[in-house]
Amino acid sequence: MRKIGIDQLDDMARGAGILGTGGGGDPYVGKLLAREAIRRHGPVTLYDIAEVPADATVVPISGMGAPTVLLEKLPAGTEELAALRALEAVLGRKATHIVPIEVGGVNSMIPIAAAAQAGLPLVDGDAMGRAFPEAQMVLPTLIGVSNTPMALADDKGNTLVVDAISNHWAERLGRAACVQMGCQVSCADTVLRGDQLADGLVPATLTLAEDLGRAVRLARAAHADPVAAATSVLGGVKLFAGKVVDVERRTTGGFARGKALLAGAGSFELSFQNEHLLARRDGGIVATTPDLICVLDTDTGEPVTTEAMRYGLRVTVIGVPCDPRWTSPAGLELAGPRYFGYDCDYRPLPLA
Amino acid sequence: MRKIGIDQLDDMARGAGILGTGGGGDPYVGKLLAREAIRRHGPVTLYDIAEVPADATVVPISGMGAPTVLLEKLPAGTEELAALRALEAVLGRKATHIVPIEVGGVNSMIPIAAAAQAGLPLVDGDAMGRAFPEAQMVLPTLIGVSNTPMALADDKGNTLVVDAISNHWAERLGRAACVQMGCQVSCADTVLRGDQLADGLVPATLTLAEDLGRAVRLARAAHADPVAAATSVLGGVKLFAGKVVDVERRTTGGFARGKALLAGAGSFELSFQNEHLLARRDGGIVATTPDLICVLDTDTGEPVTTEAMRYGLRVTVIGVPCDPRWTSPAGLELAGPRYFGYDCDYRPLPLA
Repeated sequence: MRKIGIDQLDDMARGAGILGTGGGGDPYVGKLLAREAIRRHGPVTLYDIAEVPADATVVPISGMGAPTVLLEKLPAGTEELAALRALEAVLGRKATHIVPIEVGGVNSMIPIAAAAQAGLPLVDGDAMGRAFPEAQMVLPTLIGVSNTPMALADDKGNTLVVDAISNHWAERLGRAACVQMGCQVSCADTVLRGDQLADGLVPATLTLAEDLGRAVRLARAAHADPVAAATSVLGGVKLFAGKVVDVERRTTGGFARGKALLAGAGSFELSFQNEHLLARRDGGIVATTPDLICVLDTDTGEPVTTEAMRYGLRVTVIGVPCDPRWTSPAGLELAGPRYFGYDCDYRPLPLA
Repeated sequence: MRKIGIDQLDDMARGAGILGTGGGGDPYVGKLLAREAIRRHGPVTLYDIAEVPADATVVPISGMGAPTVLLEKLPAGTEELAALRALEAVLGRKATHIVPIEVGGVNSMIPIAAAAQAGLPLVDGDAMGRAFPEAQMVLPTLIGVSNTPMALADDKGNTLVVDAISNHWAERLGRAACVQMGCQVSCADTVLRGDQLADGLVPATLTLAEDLGRAVRLARAAHADPVAAATSVLGGVKLFAGKVVDVERRTTGGFARGKALLAGAGSFELSFQNEHLLARRDGGIVATTPDLICVLDTDTGEPVTTEAMRYGLRVTVIGVPCDPRWTSPAGLELAGPRYFGYDCDYRPLPLA
């Protein structure tokens, strides 16, 4: 158990942004939300998974929508609690802990803000060990936990509760409502009991995010290579370094979809749906979902989200092995390249 | 108080189909649903509005979607109760009565089926006195009653509860979910207390539907003019008689939208969004929403829904004055021609 205060947020947001593989929302907006909530309500208590009682009611709180929208349409700051309260009303019991559904700029920070606002402790972990675009793409799906009831709340005061026959259906219905709500809503769903956390979460990812963010900051301060520091913390492999020469991006169906083309020693193409899902070097596939394809600013080591990718930016792409549960047959069916329509199988990352 | 059994359904469905102004869903499908429910669960008790206790919890049950879809995708028959139960769960109390939200082929029959299944009495009236395409277009909106919580249930077992900041927002969010659910769902919303029924309902419209359907049937049996019989029961005016020469129809945004062109003594054009909303004779407007524009088969007096309109059909169009509350400024803002994008004001029907 430890406290998260304002001082931890910079490193944590930076690291979460890197782990968010291009998605999860702008870390800066997330940091502001968490900072404001901690300023008002005080620091948040962070528990290891092992410290959470077996009968706890652990509620993931997240933002759903297209990160491109978040850049222009800021949250009201009331959505997280509105979603939590709507979920609790149908559950018939109160949340005892908050947890991130994924790591990613905004989606690691929103749970901190929600925990501060609700006066609840936070669990150190998340349900993906990275960021994925769709609501059913969580480890709890692999162990048969329903992601409904799923409560959505927008900035205007509308709420909506989905009770679906499958986790895919919840995504479909929630996404359609999310688009109508302005493509930027808060979500409370995929409730876990304390004794489901070991199987349903990747442990200690908030701490990993903080360690990662700190390593980048310290390397920069020491005039060392921040990207190399991040790669080392993550046990990742450098895939490419180059300049962004083209970005094709559209906000459609409730997602930010597109491609980015890099030029350096050869050419490199990234395909994304909120998150980077496929990387090709000179036409050959070098990394696929569910492994993490992280894009960093080559100079600063800061995460580059897909919506911030722009012509001329010098970036380095690193690949990081995903949680091994994602490379099981069921994991790949849920979040492997074929689910996203890419005609290729998952292939493990090249060795470093 | 009286009983509705299988024997009443034919007349009631026919009359409701006429009052549905082209929308409200295929009367035949609706009749089958109500017949099956009554066969299994027994007749339904129908109460006049004045007989309902002031503290009653009266729940409108309806189908939402595009009538064109209903022709090919039959309901499972489980949706009504699923929507009702989902609504009751968030209300925290049980419905005491069921009522139709509108008159129209399916939407007058679904409440009968729901009442039979739930073992609840039915109220003789509806919230429009006709059929309208959107969920906020109900008299309860005019007296400040919220249409949320709104519960939706599909044939697959998904349910969804909307809690919106306005009745328009509920329509928007519910419709988006409805489209994902297959464009054919059951809805429980716009809960009324017993003492709100006088202001929130048009009274005795199920009885009117039955009277109307009976008049058509008896005229036909007597080799009299069934369309004239219907016009007389409704106090309506004949607008045109002719042959359908063109139909332009698309299912989009959760609605059946389009136009139908008739030829006879001149030309006549009907514009619809689920329901007929505007009628032009030789280019001049002769009837507009919220007045009822009813299309009947000229030979049989049977209602012709927009989805059944086809080349060669001989039809007669009659105009019927709407409930006077709809022609108030607030009523016209909610359901007048300008709301639907027509650049004209409401004009009362020509005198008979």
